[in-house]
Amino acid sequence: MYTLYYSPGAASMLVHLTLLEIGAPHALERVDLEAGQQRSAAYLALNPNGVVPTLLVDGVPHGEAAALTLLLAERHPDAALAPPPDSPQRAEYLQWMLYLANSLQPAYRCWFYPDQHVADGAAGIKEAARIGIEACWSRINAHLATHGPHMLGATFSVVDLYALMLMRWSRNMPRPATTWPHVAELAARLKTRPSWKRLCDTEGLAEWA
Amino acid sequence: MYTLYYSPGAASMLVHLTLLEIGAPHALERVDLEAGQQRSAAYLALNPNGVVPTLLVDGVPHGEAAALTLLLAERHPDAALAPPPDSPQRAEYLQWMLYLANSLQPAYRCWFYPDQHVADGAAGIKEAARIGIEACWSRINAHLATHGPHMLGATFSVVDLYALMLMRWSRNMPRPATTWPHVAELAARLKTRPSWKRLCDTEGLAEWA
Repeated sequence: MYTLYYSPGAASMLVHLTLLEIGAPHALERVDLEAGQQRSAAYLALNPNGVVPTLLVDGVPHGEAAALTLLLAERHPDAALAPPPDSPQRAEYLQWMLYLANSLQPAYRCWFYPDQHVADGAAGIKEAARIGIEACWSRINAHLATHGPHMLGATFSVVDLYALMLMRWSRNMPRPATTWPHVAELAARLKTRPSWKRLCDTEGLAEWA
Repeated sequence: MYTLYYSPGAASMLVHLTLLEIGAPHALERVDLEAGQQRSAAYLALNPNGVVPTLLVDGVPHGEAAALTLLLAERHPDAALAPPPDSPQRAEYLQWMLYLANSLQPAYRCWFYPDQHVADGAAGIKEAARIGIEACWSRINAHLATHGPHMLGATFSVVDLYALMLMRWSRNMPRPATTWPHVAELAARLKTRPSWKRLCDTEGLAEWA
């Protein structure tokens, strides 16, 4: 049994989608980010970074969306959401998970919170983030053009769910991810999955649904 | 058999240290970053991002230092460099690997290459990176104070090797990571391992050795 602390459309969405794909029983606890609930003592005890998601696994709290996704995929091998450890696709799977975690997701943090650390210079931080994000989508689009339709080719995996969340985050940016044709094709494909509809209903995501 | 494309002290160091800890036979290919060899057509064919490391696994090139480290740890379970999938420490292991990959390592990229994407605003990017990096080390120091001496407590793992590389990268920053006492204690502990001495000799790392 899992309990997911989430906020609609935030990074918790990746873990939520993964739980839905697995069909794993889970409880949901909404964290009100606008009210600052993530900085409450009770929440910081679960997640010292004060961010969502937190996932209780056997009662123990853990964070980091991509790490939780790797964990869930390996705890539920029957759901086939990741190439197994002995698969020749394993290296590619880990590589793309880390690329999204390391290059694309942190750039969004700079885009959405450019003044997190400095008051001056936020405009430059935001512009650099935009350029970095667009460079990532260009690279992913080129990858999908030759190695698609999924991030791991014929194999659907949690890498696609991760990419889908990051695509959605760009929806109000100057150049949304779905203006790249192969990225758009992947989004359309993933949106036909029952997990996506269920996620949108449960999290109340009307926009980009 | 593995072949590692590396540059001394770069992110390839984590993969190199991991190979040494495993005792896995490997060939080394030095990439001359100052000469721009990482942007040569030959290298880009191996690594479309034009960065080190690249690791050839059974002849197939893969990138992303943290992903390669996760991969090597799971391919060589006898080396015990990571809690196995059924371990209660597994979630914590993945969480710390992703925290370092997602929060700390990208901030160094901004510190060292603040003008990668924008000419204006580099000073703000650099300052925000410094604050972010110091916040990470404060958090890691607090974690080690109560849950050390290793990143996973009593258990040595590749998370420590990853932290060690990132500590070294801060050596010329205004506040090096080793000014935090529990971080310094971990560095001293790891530097007694044969893998560290071998790495410094092989990569020619005199500084911070």
